[in-house]
Amino acid sequence: MQTEGTGQRHDPHQELTDVLLLRVRYSETDQMGTFYNSRALEWFECGRTELMRRRLGRSYATLEAAGVFLPLVEAHLEFQGPARYDDLLRIESTVSWSGRAQLRFRVRITHAETNRAVVQGYTLHAFVDRTGRPRRPPASFLELMAQAATAGNVPATKS
Amino acid sequence: MQTEGTGQRHDPHQELTDVLLLRVRYSETDQMGTFYNSRALEWFECGRTELMRRRLGRSYATLEAAGVFLPLVEAHLEFQGPARYDDLLRIESTVSWSGRAQLRFRVRITHAETNRAVVQGYTLHAFVDRTGRPRRPPASFLELMAQAATAGNVPATKS
Amino acid sequence: MQTEGTGQRHDPHQELTDVLLLRVRYSETDQMGTFYNSRALEWFECGRTELMRRRLGRSYATLEAAGVFLPLVEAHLEFQGPARYDDLLRIESTVSWSGRAQLRFRVRITHAETNRAVVQGYTLHAFVDRTGRPRRPPASFLELMAQAATAGNVPATKS
Amino acid sequence: MQTEGTGQRHDPHQELTDVLLLRVRYSETDQMGTFYNSRALEWFECGRTELMRRRLGRSYATLEAAGVFLPLVEAHLEFQGPARYDDLLRIESTVSWSGRAQLRFRVRITHAETNRAVVQGYTLHAFVDRTGRPRRPPASFLELMAQAATAGNVPATKS
Repeated sequence: MQTEGTGQRHDPHQELTDVLLLRVRYSETDQMGTFYNSRALEWFECGRTELMRRRLGRSYATLEAAGVFLPLVEAHLEFQGPARYDDLLRIESTVSWSGRAQLRFRVRITHAETNRAVVQGYTLHAFVDRTGRPRRPPASFLELMAQAATAGNVPATKS
Repeated sequence: MQTEGTGQRHDPHQELTDVLLLRVRYSETDQMGTFYNSRALEWFECGRTELMRRRLGRSYATLEAAGVFLPLVEAHLEFQGPARYDDLLRIESTVSWSGRAQLRFRVRITHAETNRAVVQGYTLHAFVDRTGRPRRPPASFLELMAQAATAGNVPATKS
Repeated sequence: MQTEGTGQRHDPHQELTDVLLLRVRYSETDQMGTFYNSRALEWFECGRTELMRRRLGRSYATLEAAGVFLPLVEAHLEFQGPARYDDLLRIESTVSWSGRAQLRFRVRITHAETNRAVVQGYTLHAFVDRTGRPRRPPASFLELMAQAATAGNVPATKS
Repeated sequence: MQTEGTGQRHDPHQELTDVLLLRVRYSETDQMGTFYNSRALEWFECGRTELMRRRLGRSYATLEAAGVFLPLVEAHLEFQGPARYDDLLRIESTVSWSGRAQLRFRVRITHAETNRAVVQGYTLHAFVDRTGRPRRPPASFLELMAQAATAGNVPATKS
């Protein structure tokens, strides 16, 4: 039945994880010698971008081109330890539904070589149209999420 | 008595508020046409900097020069509405103690002319020394907080 | 005569100067302890924005709303000395015509209190329409430039 | 002879090239829909960082740890075309001596798939010590440059 099918697509257990490796840029440091706090939100974005491309098979750029935007509604960050210029970081991002109309990305950033914690947190995203008005997630997006979650997670790869 | 005095200095009701006006820079926008999310944390910092200079009479730069650093431990942001290039924003920051050894800055960013909400949230800061090790807030800082809270809040001014 | 009038408007001696004061943000420093190099281009933009608002009486935001965009074609920067967190900088911007269809902004950034040099350089801007195609400067803009240049420079003010 | 040897090390024909691929981040766009101009200087930095790690076999982080800093003295940029969110860019960086005590990095950024030009320019770097005072390039660095230039260029790789 259509209704049941739609319900399953929002299964709260449906989630996708992806891992991205990136290096701290010099421009991301500050005079304390570690990364400036707001850069963490930019790394969260890098994680989201690669998760969508690699796990959903549909880049966020394509989504926006189709009139679907995912602005941040909420963000939370816990700063756990330093990361310096040129350090190699591991960004693990996991997307899941938050209710029927929002996405939650949980992120854990660690040092790739030592596993030491750097930042963890989440961002919450609404679906809006080109004019900024809330809209339902497109059916094709629900489909992609459901398919990808069924397919299981792929191994971590440098992107 | 010394002990009572120190206790009072951490009075949870002790808080200071300051208001800063600033304009959205072009570099702070993104292709969605509003400010990129991480910029909000940079505006939070601008609010903290002016609050400390204007309400405590001691700039954060001076504090760091004396070996006292206030790195972020936690941050939380709720994105409430757009802000575009050249919009004039009102940043209201309030500092208070969080336990005996951390500071909490609560921030509310609104459009200066219409009062429409843009972002609200908080940042939580530890006291650390030059090497990044936790340390107690310096006595002189406790004193400044206590004095400023007693003096009452000053009127909002463009900085 | 119309034609002569238009010619005068591109008078190479026609130029406007404005001064903006701003403080170095913590987010603009890097681990060398001074500002990260690319921030200078963002300060150049702050200078342009205020020059247009204060000297032309027409904000760049209004110009873009009317379909006139001024993307950078070229930029040149000479880094002359450090500027640290919370330092108060003086940004002196001068706009003039570069040929008939481009604007040149020359910028000199110094320490407001000591006059020590920080950065100097210029940016060159084309006039393009909403789709990015080159276009002639609008007549109203030529008019504003000519009027403002005639009016003479206003005294430096904190913005 | 020692002197001749040192002279050869500054051979103006001695140069190293490296190629880095990177994607435009959402945080790097602005409301014009393309990258904000100052980001180009941050991409130049990414190019330098990888060139030094891959071609000299010594990261810039290691150099700074040894008390050798390479601050920008001058930068020049020509903006040739747009680059949008998620576009894959090719950053070709070439380092050579500029006189006996400065390095010049020439950079060409193009679209990786279409070869369309995005930005080209250069940065000029002094050698300074921890306190910001000019110093001679360390002998070990001269050696690495000479060896690497002799070894010839390696094929372009995604980093």
